Amino acid sequence: MQSLVELINIQATPPSLSDNTGDLDRLKKSLAVMLEGCQPLVPMLRMAPIAKSFRQAGFKGAALVVRLDAGVQLIDFLPDAPGVLPAMALDLGTTHLEASLLDLLSGKVLERATLVNAQLEFGSDILTRIHFAGDRNGAGENLLMLQKRVLQCINDLAGELARKAKIATQDIVALCVSGNTTMIHFFLQLDPYHLCREPYIPVVNSPDPFGAQDVGLGFHPGATVWVMPSVGSYFGGDLISGILASGLDEQEETSMLIDVGTNAEVVVGNREWLIACAGAAGPALEGGVARMGMRADTGAIEHCSIDQDTGELNYKTIGDGPARGICGSGVIDLVADLYLARIIDIRGKFRPKQPQAAGRFIEQDAGLAYVVVPAAEGDKGQPVLLSQVDIDALMRSKAAMYSILTTITSQVGVRFEELHRIYVAGAFGKHISPQQAIVLGMLPDLDLGVYQPLGNSSLAGAELILLDRQAWQRSREIVAKVTYVELNVNQEFMIRFSGCRFIPHTDHTLFPSVPFFDEP
Amino acid sequence: MQSLVELINIQATPPSLSDNTGDLDRLKKSLAVMLEGCQPLVPMLRMAPIAKSFRQAGFKGAALVVRLDAGVQLIDFLPDAPGVLPAMALDLGTTHLEASLLDLLSGKVLERATLVNAQLEFGSDILTRIHFAGDRNGAGENLLMLQKRVLQCINDLAGELARKAKIATQDIVALCVSGNTTMIHFFLQLDPYHLCREPYIPVVNSPDPFGAQDVGLGFHPGATVWVMPSVGSYFGGDLISGILASGLDEQEETSMLIDVGTNAEVVVGNREWLIACAGAAGPALEGGVARMGMRADTGAIEHCSIDQDTGELNYKTIGDGPARGICGSGVIDLVADLYLARIIDIRGKFRPKQPQAAGRFIEQDAGLAYVVVPAAEGDKGQPVLLSQVDIDALMRSKAAMYSILTTITSQVGVRFEELHRIYVAGAFGKHISPQQAIVLGMLPDLDLGVYQPLGNSSLAGAELILLDRQAWQRSREIVAKVTYVELNVNQEFMIRFSGCRFIPHTDHTLFPSVPFFDEP
Repeated sequence: MQSLVELINIQATPPSLSDNTGDLDRLKKSLAVMLEGCQPLVPMLRMAPIAKSFRQAGFKGAALVVRLDAGVQLIDFLPDAPGVLPAMALDLGTTHLEASLLDLLSGKVLERATLVNAQLEFGSDILTRIHFAGDRNGAGENLLMLQKRVLQCINDLAGELARKAKIATQDIVALCVSGNTTMIHFFLQLDPYHLCREPYIPVVNSPDPFGAQDVGLGFHPGATVWVMPSVGSYFGGDLISGILASGLDEQEETSMLIDVGTNAEVVVGNREWLIACAGAAGPALEGGVARMGMRADTGAIEHCSIDQDTGELNYKTIGDGPARGICGSGVIDLVADLYLARIIDIRGKFRPKQPQAAGRFIEQDAGLAYVVVPAAEGDKGQPVLLSQVDIDALMRSKAAMYSILTTITSQVGVRFEELHRIYVAGAFGKHISPQQAIVLGMLPDLDLGVYQPLGNSSLAGAELILLDRQAWQRSREIVAKVTYVELNVNQEFMIRFSGCRFIPHTDHTLFPSVPFFDEP
Repeated sequence: MQSLVELINIQATPPSLSDNTGDLDRLKKSLAVMLEGCQPLVPMLRMAPIAKSFRQAGFKGAALVVRLDAGVQLIDFLPDAPGVLPAMALDLGTTHLEASLLDLLSGKVLERATLVNAQLEFGSDILTRIHFAGDRNGAGENLLMLQKRVLQCINDLAGELARKAKIATQDIVALCVSGNTTMIHFFLQLDPYHLCREPYIPVVNSPDPFGAQDVGLGFHPGATVWVMPSVGSYFGGDLISGILASGLDEQEETSMLIDVGTNAEVVVGNREWLIACAGAAGPALEGGVARMGMRADTGAIEHCSIDQDTGELNYKTIGDGPARGICGSGVIDLVADLYLARIIDIRGKFRPKQPQAAGRFIEQDAGLAYVVVPAAEGDKGQPVLLSQVDIDALMRSKAAMYSILTTITSQVGVRFEELHRIYVAGAFGKHISPQQAIVLGMLPDLDLGVYQPLGNSSLAGAELILLDRQAWQRSREIVAKVTYVELNVNQEFMIRFSGCRFIPHTDHTLFPSVPFFDEP
């Protein structure tokens, strides 16, 4: 693998009266030989420092070059080749930014860091921020403010990574950003107005690489920024990253990729074709359940189980401390086991008289709630509760998810059984038990080995771009290859959705491994 | 001829649910079809305004694109194609800046303007400014100041041109700058330290095109700057312009190009080969004669003649007003006729007793002076005088010039008689009488039809770059083709120089058309 930025050793003949070639021309000439005739370009503002360093080093050392679509750019000259060549990969998420610092020489990850998105101040969800950005009569000041918050976050993350790795922020020579289409619009200060309005058109899908200085990032003055391309407003670069990281686009067998957040985004395909769709999955799956939901963070119930005979509940929190709430995978485990213990019915409604739930229900203003963790056991003496409202939200999410999966596979005439792999991206993929999701009728009833968690594939894709120069080309090819199905206006999807609002499904032959209870 | 910047008509299909391509990607796709598959790039800071304009115009209008070495760049989108597409060509001279405003659509010159180089404040000659730039322990503040002066001049000129042409400065989409190597270093804020020190190496010969905004020029925000490449410290882009404008590099016959300023720069060649040299010619030829010398400007004696029998002197001033001084061509006419009237001898020394000079000499502190224009006739009641010191300076200049010409032709084994054309660039070429220069032994004794004035070929070359996209490639090819002979260290040159310090020459067989006077 060869990275997009590289060091090339140069040993040029010093100038003389019989060879009066200018310093930069001399360096470019030596470089062109090493690049097999490719003529490197030097950005105007890099000319003086590069020429100075080249001369001071006695016309030998290491040229720092970057491979752009438009050819090779010479961005620095170092008298001695450094031991590491740091670059930053970034998953630019709506709520969190996750970054890694890579060494492009060894291909290793040097450090990782996470930061809360400072845009949260302007709205926790994307739609609120899009609305905030729309001071459409004004000079775009709000949009600029949103961009500044993101840039500050990136600079802060870069500073933290550099500190940990004992390098200078100015040593970072490249950045690759992967994120959903709206976050990329904020990052580039592009008007997001049309992203959420039919026909949902982004300002740009595939931005060209640009200089980190163009947006005021405090990296190496010649550092380049690559932005992962997107397919549409609801199918962003984070998903293209997922496809890259999973290798879906290179395999002969047909596989599926699922990424779940507020939206569920799904891709089916192989090296010949790719079809994609996205649909609102509701907030239940990323910790947005009414009161007790939380991100997969310390103190979140990540897994739990209910003894079907005794109703006894066991749980495990992230970090093993007292429970503070429940994250997506915990909710799925919990509701699946509530169903298997018959504490809820096939519509997801509480059956308070079920003996296994004895002593587990309390009455609240908003109605009945199931006590997951009693106050005495909970963090800061607070109980963890699950209300009917929470379950209803999950039921909508799981119905949406399965509807999306069936709609997209039916579009291409592929049966679930024909899928080689189902890659599940993100925190959801990392923590979820496919088995419990199958019980709920959220994921198809397949062999568990088919399901493969991908981790943060948005970040992994960005890393790949920096480390393997083929990946940038691949990302563009993926965008060109993907057929995007707009579910928001898909009639078939709406019909399927109704059939999915039961556990596991109105057609229980679809889920042979799940017990079916006939009576309400 | 196709220009480097052009308008391309676009009519794209508007977006829909079945075609959710982003606005910029849509525009680039339409453009790629018009560019026969060439993928245009969009600079980061141009994305938002271009996308906005494209959408507001209903996805049809005119794309403004620029052809760079690295491919086509999309810099603007206009709802309606404008009637003119203004670009600025600039001759960046040591004393003056001369500019023209071109319309890239019609290829016509809209306006011309001239401005004194504001760097004069830091020294009238290049060496003083190089010295001033060299606060080598500091932060390069003087160099920055020199750059700022030039940029201010360019902005001022652009403003003047725009006002005259009734356009906005922001409508100017391109700039091509042609100048000597030192001025280009100041313009690009590059350290000129090594330009005047053996082995005379520039920081750069061929800078890559860059954005006008990178240096703070107030043009169109997507405007590009092309800088004419140079061959060496003493053979700048102004000369490459001259070669371009004369077509020397495209002709089968061998010709010569002469550009005279403080330095005389000479090229000999044809479409197969080019050889060049430069040498100090002294200030006499660009109006630097001790007291009365001036630029070819209003009130300068441009031509004069002396009746060989009566000694009567006739002169013509530029603008036909009272005489203020005498410019290069006037000095050449005058000294040639002083020789022919035997008022000076073959060494250029006054012969005060010569009857034709009766009443023409006055005694000054510095010695004898010949009265060209008596005080009563001169501007503001001041006489125009020619002193022995002035003549001595001219003698050195003419000797240098002829030495350069013989040195370079002998290097390539071409006799003067074999030259198809001798192009004479600049104000010198425009005003000079080759006949009188031949009398002095400054130019070879050839048929007068061989001599062709080029005018401001530095400016003409810059215009050509903007108007004909082949010319940029040609300029690079010329640089690659030129063999540069460094005269400053050429022994042969110094020997020849001695032989040239007589009128017309010690070897008067070289100048059969010039009368030779034996006695002193």
